[in-house]
Amino acid sequence: MAQLLPSQTAIHYWQRVRSTVPLTLCLTNNVVTNWTANVLLAAHASPAMLDDDSEAEALAAVASALLINVGTLNATHAQAMTKAVASAKRAGKPWVLDPVAVGLLPLRTALCRNLLRENPTVVRGNPSEILTLAGETAKCRGADSTQGSEEALMAAKHLALEAKTIVAVTGASDYITDGERTWRIDNGHPLLQRVTGTGCALSALVAAYVSTASNKSEVLEAAASACAVFSVAGEEAAQKTLDRNEGTGSFAVYLLDALAMLDEITLEKRMERKMR
Amino acid sequence: MAQLLPSQTAIHYWQRVRSTVPLTLCLTNNVVTNWTANVLLAAHASPAMLDDDSEAEALAAVASALLINVGTLNATHAQAMTKAVASAKRAGKPWVLDPVAVGLLPLRTALCRNLLRENPTVVRGNPSEILTLAGETAKCRGADSTQGSEEALMAAKHLALEAKTIVAVTGASDYITDGERTWRIDNGHPLLQRVTGTGCALSALVAAYVSTASNKSEVLEAAASACAVFSVAGEEAAQKTLDRNEGTGSFAVYLLDALAMLDEITLEKRMERKMR
Amino acid sequence: MAQLLPSQTAIHYWQRVRSTVPLTLCLTNNVVTNWTANVLLAAHASPAMLDDDSEAEALAAVASALLINVGTLNATHAQAMTKAVASAKRAGKPWVLDPVAVGLLPLRTALCRNLLRENPTVVRGNPSEILTLAGETAKCRGADSTQGSEEALMAAKHLALEAKTIVAVTGASDYITDGERTWRIDNGHPLLQRVTGTGCALSALVAAYVSTASNKSEVLEAAASACAVFSVAGEEAAQKTLDRNEGTGSFAVYLLDALAMLDEITLEKRMERKMR
Repeated sequence: MAQLLPSQTAIHYWQRVRSTVPLTLCLTNNVVTNWTANVLLAAHASPAMLDDDSEAEALAAVASALLINVGTLNATHAQAMTKAVASAKRAGKPWVLDPVAVGLLPLRTALCRNLLRENPTVVRGNPSEILTLAGETAKCRGADSTQGSEEALMAAKHLALEAKTIVAVTGASDYITDGERTWRIDNGHPLLQRVTGTGCALSALVAAYVSTASNKSEVLEAAASACAVFSVAGEEAAQKTLDRNEGTGSFAVYLLDALAMLDEITLEKRMERKMR
Repeated sequence: MAQLLPSQTAIHYWQRVRSTVPLTLCLTNNVVTNWTANVLLAAHASPAMLDDDSEAEALAAVASALLINVGTLNATHAQAMTKAVASAKRAGKPWVLDPVAVGLLPLRTALCRNLLRENPTVVRGNPSEILTLAGETAKCRGADSTQGSEEALMAAKHLALEAKTIVAVTGASDYITDGERTWRIDNGHPLLQRVTGTGCALSALVAAYVSTASNKSEVLEAAASACAVFSVAGEEAAQKTLDRNEGTGSFAVYLLDALAMLDEITLEKRMERKMR
Repeated sequence: MAQLLPSQTAIHYWQRVRSTVPLTLCLTNNVVTNWTANVLLAAHASPAMLDDDSEAEALAAVASALLINVGTLNATHAQAMTKAVASAKRAGKPWVLDPVAVGLLPLRTALCRNLLRENPTVVRGNPSEILTLAGETAKCRGADSTQGSEEALMAAKHLALEAKTIVAVTGASDYITDGERTWRIDNGHPLLQRVTGTGCALSALVAAYVSTASNKSEVLEAAASACAVFSVAGEEAAQKTLDRNEGTGSFAVYLLDALAMLDEITLEKRMERKMR
């Protein structure tokens, strides 16, 4: 199995984001724009959301990082995303692909296949999405895929190598891999599945974090650190929610609170607990 | 007057939704996408939101139910909605129409008139919207409409019979009718009017609930049960808000909490209280 | 320096909005639609959001006020906004321009320049946006602009005179000016910067408030009163957040609560405190 990410690594990139407040351009789905912006603000990053393709192209060249999320894709947005990715690449800026529900639906599947050829800095998805994308490149999956964590990790490694990218497959455990080295995060809480857009917002956070990396090894660490920070904040929020016998509405509020109030001691304590 | 829905009926459909977690495709307005998804998740349903017409057509065929809400309609969305409705009907899936502000504005009025001919499984609206739609079919209203509850019920019955649908007209009391049989819900709280999208989210919940019905009589019960569950959760949230001297922001959070934490005892207790 | 707005003025317009519940049509960016609607509802106004240009044109003629916010502008929305402004002007209704990120991005910069020629009732922006717009008309800025508060006030005055409008430039202090008379608000809290869309929602509130004004002097007072109400609510919410050691998620909830629960005594107490 993959090695657990050391808490000191997560703390290091958490400090980098706090000190740089990266401008993170999000071309994302219309369900999560507000939530994603508030997650980024809580986590000490600076969000920017746009719609028009010429504006997306212009801002992608100067933002610190770019997120592409295909959750409510339409043909106009597909064009804006393609232009933004090209602009980010010309400017040497990192970009993250979140292939929401790829494989199930036609327009997004075509766009994700095209964007995968543009070597995203990171692809973040759930096991099902990563297995689908890996099947598109490596053809390593059969119809009997059970989409368990280990299978998803194998698919993530294939996908990372084939598409020359870093893949973050997140779920009960998160795996972040370049195909050769892999970090694992065991933090998190099932309540994260009961609020819409937690995965989408994590992808935006990954974009913010990898903007502070200066080489591919750092990108791997930075992406894993974003997953760690988000998972630890999820644990903090879940504990408060359960302690107070509250529900998913309060949990979402406490998740933002936890991201905003997170400190080194909390990160270390909750990540080290998983080491034992 | 119509008979109060028995709490045992609401509990029955609440249990069905909990056990089936229906995938509810929402083509809804851009003000309430996030809120609607979080209401569905809190209420143990599974939301899906889309924008593109080809994707909407594809998912409507496999989702458990479809919601059409015209709140921020544009011509592109009207086309996607028309295709999704046709797809849902071909696949035998239930669909709900929420005719936000019909009559007042041109594009949505035309679309609602067209969609009404497609026999929606349920139409949910406020008294004003139902009176408008009933006027479109039954011409039973004059210009001196006072839009009181009883008048709205009469209009709802007309509309249900003319359009061969079930109509849920919600307000201080909710009435759910197929034109012949009518259920009434007296639960709820005025604070529900002070948060945007409560009616829109209720319509999505109605779609989730009617996906568990296997005939028209069950659809009537399931739609009424969704209204009951939402109204009881509203009472729970309002009580907590007022007890703590808080405002509309906390109420919205507590409404999600109440939907997530609802149980049979709370449903029974709050619904039986209205029987006395 | 400009004079502090008297608390009695803010209270006066706060009462007017409570008693008229102005219907405020918002053509705004897709990040803040839900948030803006909930801010307006909390603050005792009535929100309406639309997308289609024909519907926008129709409703702008009958709404109490119109907000134009270019945050996620696209070409289709630009057309709807232009039509809505023309419709509001024909009907003699006030309208507010929020020039989000003007100057940085091409499409919105062109639209804002065009709309400025239509004499918006109020322009509300941050110092950077107002300095950019003022540069477009008065050419009073050099490249060494430090965008401090006093410079922004000078730019706001230029802009107000050139565009025959009232300018609200908001930040640590808010200045509301017609170019000759200026009101200042010193209330507020830095946490307002850590939630997305606070400025956008304030612009919508300004639109609601100026709908209660019957001449240009009253517009100046009403716009300043909206800024005061929002800033005082921000202080109330920040105090509760800090008292409870919570973060940005709770702050956003408490801001809505504070707007909903605000009263004359709180407004007077917090505004008078700045007079000393």
